[in-house]
Amino acid sequence: MKKNNVSPGDYVLLLGKGKTWLVRAMEGYDFHTHLGKVRFSDILGKPFGSPIYSEKGEKLFALRPTIEDFVMKCERQTQIVYPKDLGMISLEADIRSGSSVLEAGSGSGAMTTYLASLVAPKGHVYTYELREEFKRMAERNVMKAGLEGVVTFKLQDASKGFEEKNIDACVIDVGDPWVLVPQCWKALRPSGRFVGVTPTMNQAERLSEVLRASGFSRVKCIEIMLRNIEAREGKTRPSMMMVGHTAYLIFATKVLETSQSASSDLAEAGEDL
Amino acid sequence: MKKNNVSPGDYVLLLGKGKTWLVRAMEGYDFHTHLGKVRFSDILGKPFGSPIYSEKGEKLFALRPTIEDFVMKCERQTQIVYPKDLGMISLEADIRSGSSVLEAGSGSGAMTTYLASLVAPKGHVYTYELREEFKRMAERNVMKAGLEGVVTFKLQDASKGFEEKNIDACVIDVGDPWVLVPQCWKALRPSGRFVGVTPTMNQAERLSEVLRASGFSRVKCIEIMLRNIEAREGKTRPSMMMVGHTAYLIFATKVLETSQSASSDLAEAGEDL
Amino acid sequence: MKKNNVSPGDYVLLLGKGKTWLVRAMEGYDFHTHLGKVRFSDILGKPFGSPIYSEKGEKLFALRPTIEDFVMKCERQTQIVYPKDLGMISLEADIRSGSSVLEAGSGSGAMTTYLASLVAPKGHVYTYELREEFKRMAERNVMKAGLEGVVTFKLQDASKGFEEKNIDACVIDVGDPWVLVPQCWKALRPSGRFVGVTPTMNQAERLSEVLRASGFSRVKCIEIMLRNIEAREGKTRPSMMMVGHTAYLIFATKVLETSQSASSDLAEAGEDL
Amino acid sequence: MKKNNVSPGDYVLLLGKGKTWLVRAMEGYDFHTHLGKVRFSDILGKPFGSPIYSEKGEKLFALRPTIEDFVMKCERQTQIVYPKDLGMISLEADIRSGSSVLEAGSGSGAMTTYLASLVAPKGHVYTYELREEFKRMAERNVMKAGLEGVVTFKLQDASKGFEEKNIDACVIDVGDPWVLVPQCWKALRPSGRFVGVTPTMNQAERLSEVLRASGFSRVKCIEIMLRNIEAREGKTRPSMMMVGHTAYLIFATKVLETSQSASSDLAEAGEDL
Repeated sequence: MKKNNVSPGDYVLLLGKGKTWLVRAMEGYDFHTHLGKVRFSDILGKPFGSPIYSEKGEKLFALRPTIEDFVMKCERQTQIVYPKDLGMISLEADIRSGSSVLEAGSGSGAMTTYLASLVAPKGHVYTYELREEFKRMAERNVMKAGLEGVVTFKLQDASKGFEEKNIDACVIDVGDPWVLVPQCWKALRPSGRFVGVTPTMNQAERLSEVLRASGFSRVKCIEIMLRNIEAREGKTRPSMMMVGHTAYLIFATKVLETSQSASSDLAEAGEDL
Repeated sequence: MKKNNVSPGDYVLLLGKGKTWLVRAMEGYDFHTHLGKVRFSDILGKPFGSPIYSEKGEKLFALRPTIEDFVMKCERQTQIVYPKDLGMISLEADIRSGSSVLEAGSGSGAMTTYLASLVAPKGHVYTYELREEFKRMAERNVMKAGLEGVVTFKLQDASKGFEEKNIDACVIDVGDPWVLVPQCWKALRPSGRFVGVTPTMNQAERLSEVLRASGFSRVKCIEIMLRNIEAREGKTRPSMMMVGHTAYLIFATKVLETSQSASSDLAEAGEDL
Repeated sequence: MKKNNVSPGDYVLLLGKGKTWLVRAMEGYDFHTHLGKVRFSDILGKPFGSPIYSEKGEKLFALRPTIEDFVMKCERQTQIVYPKDLGMISLEADIRSGSSVLEAGSGSGAMTTYLASLVAPKGHVYTYELREEFKRMAERNVMKAGLEGVVTFKLQDASKGFEEKNIDACVIDVGDPWVLVPQCWKALRPSGRFVGVTPTMNQAERLSEVLRASGFSRVKCIEIMLRNIEAREGKTRPSMMMVGHTAYLIFATKVLETSQSASSDLAEAGEDL
Repeated sequence: MKKNNVSPGDYVLLLGKGKTWLVRAMEGYDFHTHLGKVRFSDILGKPFGSPIYSEKGEKLFALRPTIEDFVMKCERQTQIVYPKDLGMISLEADIRSGSSVLEAGSGSGAMTTYLASLVAPKGHVYTYELREEFKRMAERNVMKAGLEGVVTFKLQDASKGFEEKNIDACVIDVGDPWVLVPQCWKALRPSGRFVGVTPTMNQAERLSEVLRASGFSRVKCIEIMLRNIEAREGKTRPSMMMVGHTAYLIFATKVLETSQSASSDLAEAGEDL
């Protein structure tokens, strides 16, 4: 069972008047918001979900952060993949506790954090990144969520090939994802799943075509739109502004072209499959 | 590591010309499709992902079913929650390996199967259902996906109260979800998450209002639209028909009204919190 | 044929670096933008569509304003109906050259301007408004577009009844549109069309029910979503932000409950139909 | 004022139990539906909007058809442009009573019918079509709506150039619309509007690029999504199925590259502008 009370060093999501802050509760420290100063000593030892009053007398709540909070509040320099898309990726790629997942590139580590939360405690995420500063940022963000134990960070060029074999799913979020398709085929177990995330139609089109030509089946491309609804008595309506586009999601399944016997498959799996 | 080869009794997703069938591979049995008869003896012992030829010479693939396949192909009598919505639910409710989840009602067990796949192997789903035939159907669907070990099925009226305490998330998919809000509050740990799934605006509105009035915070209501994109070289376009609506999703977090000391919280948690 | 050249007093849509300004070209006057000062004397006598250079040497274009420009740039204090919705209204209500239209309320006159542009030159728009300042604003906006000849502005309470009969279409954009349904039925010709514009689901629901109960048929409710596409070579994608909601549109057709002879209909039409 | 009563030869929209039929009321004829036989003699002389009873005693209504009804019920062999898109086209291209419009190609004449309804009674639509059978079908559909007086049908290759000058708007719905962009520029008056209708992203992208490179400004590309709402007391919700995609709409305005004096413009307008 997860512990219910806030301990020193825990991350807490402060919620006040519709705004949220992801902060680390440290003995003897304060946190400043426009609602007034909050003392961490008022939070420590209390159950997550407790009310906390600022010096100005404003009421806030100290919530336990969800993985979505860690993703949305992560330190970042690039566009991150949105929750609406993350949820669909986990389902379509069948990523869950125990899965082994390849990711390229790590970017800010937002997606890595989410993937790690899915495969924990026994699965693993291998994430490739070319730029050292991004690798370090990804490491920091994954550590913040306490998931560093299930992630291996690699400062390596994925287009040179992945070192892992018999992987359950590949999640590719780079500008030219088609370049990595042959490498993904080699790294995936048969029936393993490929996921591509691309902002433009042109990338989605090219990636889909390359997947079809490279031993993948069940290729599909989707987009997800999320609308907030203001559900208030007698005046329920969708919010006026919404995010109209983030990315196209492309999914595919690795299939084998020739029927192999089980033993040859295992042999290959150990070699160069 | 998951085994890669099809064994007798395994479920297999047959894929042929864009159509799929979820079937159980049984020694000595055949499966009939419009593409011709497929012999299971041709699949057994082969890796998932292998090609299989029908008697008519048509090529099919024997894929490993994903949880989404089990959900979409489940035996059912009622509308199920769609993958686009399931993914969002897991994220917003922070349901993952190790979580304890309450569900009402079980319905056909499609959602139960998905929740079970998320919390496995150490978490648990407690699912309440009033109608015996639905309880049995849910059990059959969860067993099909091999997840019965992490689910407790209850033929019980959730409005009389849940027997579980300190639960991480409640997922409520019944016609009058507001009736269960006080019971969910009692069963949830502080900072635990509530999820409601309702087809109509009126339900979404009433549920949101009741949540706000019952010790929940961060109440939000969303809808998810999924569009398929036909990504083909030189003629990429969204599909003409799409699912325009399935359900509104309502999320909320349990907060505590008064600041409790850690010890009193633990005491309460063991009693009637 | 419309004249092609800008004359003194004409409205011109200045377009510069993606921004637009609706201005009146007056001899001897200047217009100031962040791109520098533009002299109207450089525009007068030139064809609409001509380039104009600011003092800073920036190139702008002097376009002929469309009705959409007049609508979107109108003086206003309230939310206006968006072009995406206006287009659908004209089609569903079959409003076109020669139509007679009732509107309540005038609001800022944006919708009035659009309706007037549709019915001109021989049709007519009768628009009811309770607040004098809105009536005057509507008059100013309609005059700007040069359409005052086809509009009658009334400072009158529409709920007390419309004075017009045998009207082709009613367009109702008030907070409690159901109140006006009986008045619309009386004012419309048989087979005439009703249009309601409401921001909330609750209003849409109540209005639809009242229409069904009041001698209207073919009642339908829709919403229109518009997405901008950034169509650029090799990087085409929808814009990130979009307007997710403006209003629900409710349409209905007046039908007669009992079969009338032609003559009795004409008699009634002259009286209290 | 439009006449209110059904005369022999008039088109009538029969509405019965949510279904509609566009039929011509002819003395002495019957119309057969699954609701039973309807006699036109029961309709003639009655006001549009009257109830009519079938032989089986089912109640139908005889509505006056709107332009949308003529468009949606037109004889056709190709995909037509949907009302949601038509409304937006009229607004963005500023097409209204008195406008002169070029169309290529005529197709089934659904768009032609709509454009004709907008420009009537004094404007004109010139519509180009290569295939004789389509030209004839377009003529039949426009005649049905009684709008043949404002349309000129041309069996001619638009890519060889339009014969008209100083046109207010061009509406291009062909597979390779970019081919016609230079011809449209020549035919349009300065500040005139271009409209392209294309089903694929690739066409939208290419057309947008060609427009930008060819003396057009204010180039924009949009898509319109329409959702039906089932507005019923206590159970209001969007319909489950919707049309997810029909076409992208591309709009642009003709601008002049060099400033011309008014007189030279007029001269050019008469010659080869």
